[in-house]
Amino acid sequence: MAEIRLPAEVAVVNVGLSAFARSVEQQGRPVAQVQWRIPADGDAAAVAALSRAYGAAATTIDAANAEVVRRLDQGAPRLLAIRTAADVVPGLDGRTIVHCGPAIAWSDTCDPLRRSIRAAVMAEGWAGTPERASALIESGQVTLDAANDHDAVVPMATALGPSAPVLVVDNPTGGTVAYSAINQGPGAVPWFGVESPAAVERLTLLRQVVGPMLRRVIEEAGPIDILTLVAQGLQMGDDVHMRTQATNNLLIRHLLPQLMTLGGAEATTLANFLRGNHLFFLNIAMAAAKALTLWAEQVDGSSVVTTMARNGTTFGIRLAGSREWFIAPAPPVGRALYQPGHGPEVAAPDIGDSAVLELIGLGGAAAAASPAVAAFVGGTLDDAVATTEEMDLISAGRSTRFKLPILGLRGSAVGVDVRKVVETGITPRVNTGILHASAGTGQIGAGVAEAPLRCFYDALLSLVL
Amino acid sequence: MAEIRLPAEVAVVNVGLSAFARSVEQQGRPVAQVQWRIPADGDAAAVAALSRAYGAAATTIDAANAEVVRRLDQGAPRLLAIRTAADVVPGLDGRTIVHCGPAIAWSDTCDPLRRSIRAAVMAEGWAGTPERASALIESGQVTLDAANDHDAVVPMATALGPSAPVLVVDNPTGGTVAYSAINQGPGAVPWFGVESPAAVERLTLLRQVVGPMLRRVIEEAGPIDILTLVAQGLQMGDDVHMRTQATNNLLIRHLLPQLMTLGGAEATTLANFLRGNHLFFLNIAMAAAKALTLWAEQVDGSSVVTTMARNGTTFGIRLAGSREWFIAPAPPVGRALYQPGHGPEVAAPDIGDSAVLELIGLGGAAAAASPAVAAFVGGTLDDAVATTEEMDLISAGRSTRFKLPILGLRGSAVGVDVRKVVETGITPRVNTGILHASAGTGQIGAGVAEAPLRCFYDALLSLVL
Repeated sequence: MAEIRLPAEVAVVNVGLSAFARSVEQQGRPVAQVQWRIPADGDAAAVAALSRAYGAAATTIDAANAEVVRRLDQGAPRLLAIRTAADVVPGLDGRTIVHCGPAIAWSDTCDPLRRSIRAAVMAEGWAGTPERASALIESGQVTLDAANDHDAVVPMATALGPSAPVLVVDNPTGGTVAYSAINQGPGAVPWFGVESPAAVERLTLLRQVVGPMLRRVIEEAGPIDILTLVAQGLQMGDDVHMRTQATNNLLIRHLLPQLMTLGGAEATTLANFLRGNHLFFLNIAMAAAKALTLWAEQVDGSSVVTTMARNGTTFGIRLAGSREWFIAPAPPVGRALYQPGHGPEVAAPDIGDSAVLELIGLGGAAAAASPAVAAFVGGTLDDAVATTEEMDLISAGRSTRFKLPILGLRGSAVGVDVRKVVETGITPRVNTGILHASAGTGQIGAGVAEAPLRCFYDALLSLVL
Repeated sequence: MAEIRLPAEVAVVNVGLSAFARSVEQQGRPVAQVQWRIPADGDAAAVAALSRAYGAAATTIDAANAEVVRRLDQGAPRLLAIRTAADVVPGLDGRTIVHCGPAIAWSDTCDPLRRSIRAAVMAEGWAGTPERASALIESGQVTLDAANDHDAVVPMATALGPSAPVLVVDNPTGGTVAYSAINQGPGAVPWFGVESPAAVERLTLLRQVVGPMLRRVIEEAGPIDILTLVAQGLQMGDDVHMRTQATNNLLIRHLLPQLMTLGGAEATTLANFLRGNHLFFLNIAMAAAKALTLWAEQVDGSSVVTTMARNGTTFGIRLAGSREWFIAPAPPVGRALYQPGHGPEVAAPDIGDSAVLELIGLGGAAAAASPAVAAFVGGTLDDAVATTEEMDLISAGRSTRFKLPILGLRGSAVGVDVRKVVETGITPRVNTGILHASAGTGQIGAGVAEAPLRCFYDALLSLVL
């Protein structure tokens, strides 16, 4: 590139291509670089949609978004109880299994989710082998559906049957109630796509011991303000998605009086389960986020995303005020760190409902809170800050309760706005684990997934055109 | 100041007064500023001592310091047991009470420490009232001594009698054993300078319930690697001095199986005690630090500090290889945040043995790890980083296990070197609480204390002149 020669006194504001600014800088003159790209890469339909969304429709959309953000930011969900799924989760009765992500045909279901669903079928006692479980599903004797369509969210490849214990989380201000499974813990377990007898046994342990014991503990402790714990956890190195270690331990200390009066051999089983499960709080945080999005999605005409979920085959979102799913192929988990002996060639695509956390200011939106997660996904704290800044660029508001210590206690981003996603081409960044694509051996790594632009594009067009 | 006019092309390295550099900068020319002050403010004796310490004696001192830093950095202390003080703490028998800081005459003892000592005398059953306790001490029927001279360390105004339960911490590599009291918890308690009946009752609770129950728990759990928990806590917002919340909770989760099998009414008492005590881990970390300094102080001829303790009247240090105390008046806690209705005019001077943590890379040395502590002592994260950088400037090495997340995982400073302290005039920064100077009402604030230069000066001169 030819050098641009400058006069002795000059100051430059450069818009767009940064190479010009660098050239000025190299000559020791002051320059301010303005980040600018052609909106939506100049796609005509997108530009038309954006013109309307930021023009004639802006007032309506902005008002709706403000209310959506208020609900996502202000609701105070409580861990209320543990119950059997069939008793509380809407429509989770008979021979139904609900799973992560958008609803999907069995034939299109990815390998880890298939295995997890079969493990759930076996744990229900409907089948004794994976083959028999597959046969029941293929013959239509077991119904599959998206957990999100039953007011529930489940992480990674979790599948949930009617006899499983579920977390019941209410949001008193909004009158919504959401559900999640109890986190299954680490190792060879169904939520990581394992269907071995030991994996099925873990589901039995949840139903027979962990669920009933925790049910007593939570009844005796009374409702727990989930997001107050989360706000503290963010000051303690959690992003409250990939890492919930600190928040988890705050909960355990909170429940110590109830835990320490349980007594008996089963108390030891529960103690060992809690002691060994760093992600126990993940599902609690997810249920809290779902309780908020269930409230927020009652607002009409918003460009803010209130459902974001993946099943390992497809990635789907919904906007507040609409039941319509916008679906695209599930992306790979791009920026990632793999366990030794594994790599992207054996990685399943992005999976799980946990991306609901990214909608309320956690996970990628709070990546800058967690140096440990930055390292765990193979990056540095600067990468984590970049992820958080990207989420901030595409969101409609900022949290008044989730503060990022290294960003001067700025609130994390709340409410992904499809207008900003399409305008910038930046899609939500989701901190997530990675499962083996076919071997049924569980988690093989962790990374940051970038949501596919297509579903945000479709959602925007559907909203305004 | 007259402006310095520069030619068109100039680059400047400025040494010393930064005003010259600013003037160059204002004219848009590149300038590198070198921080430089006259060593020891030009004090002749100090300059002579530094000339020798960095000259003829440097090789010997550097070798000794390297070994001291190795011991402070590499020892792996374990929480081994809980025992009755009289059974294990050397010389803590008969009617003896040990306390924070250097040894001190009763007549010179500050008000909060007096009250705490009297509470300990009453808890031992030697006296029924504070007046009677004072009389016993004044008549010599109760002996007082520095905890540090009995292989023990105690935080704030803690006093420790022979019937109290103590933490036993060993350092297998170095063959040392150190002790601390069990942390008394928050509120109106003796370690905050309160001697009310309720405060004395807290000591009884420790002896009758908390100590015996925790003794069982730790026996069943087996030895606990303290600094592995500490290293994790630093990634979770603890400085492991003012704040031990995360480390505390890691310990509780670690002990969950043993805690949850205790059973009985006393288990509930213990549960409530642990649940309400954010600083339970403080004393454990201090005992670990003492186990390391006991090992390090066996090295001769070092300029590294291995004892640093305050009793609210005096501030004392010792160098490795020497039993000699170097004493100066205890400083006020300068940069501080007070509870409403309180201020520096009613604040007791800096007090407690907890500054031992600053010698091994925690507290002020790790202030940058804790945005929450920065706010708690009335500052910002930038202030905390400055504190940590100051500790780094005056220390002989860096920790290989205590990593500071926001400083690119750099190790925190280990081993305060009196040469560097005298040379720079920067003294150790100690994160600490503040007690009421006279009212016996407990903690009134928290802040960062700056150690008095005089004792470092005296120690340096004693080492080399």
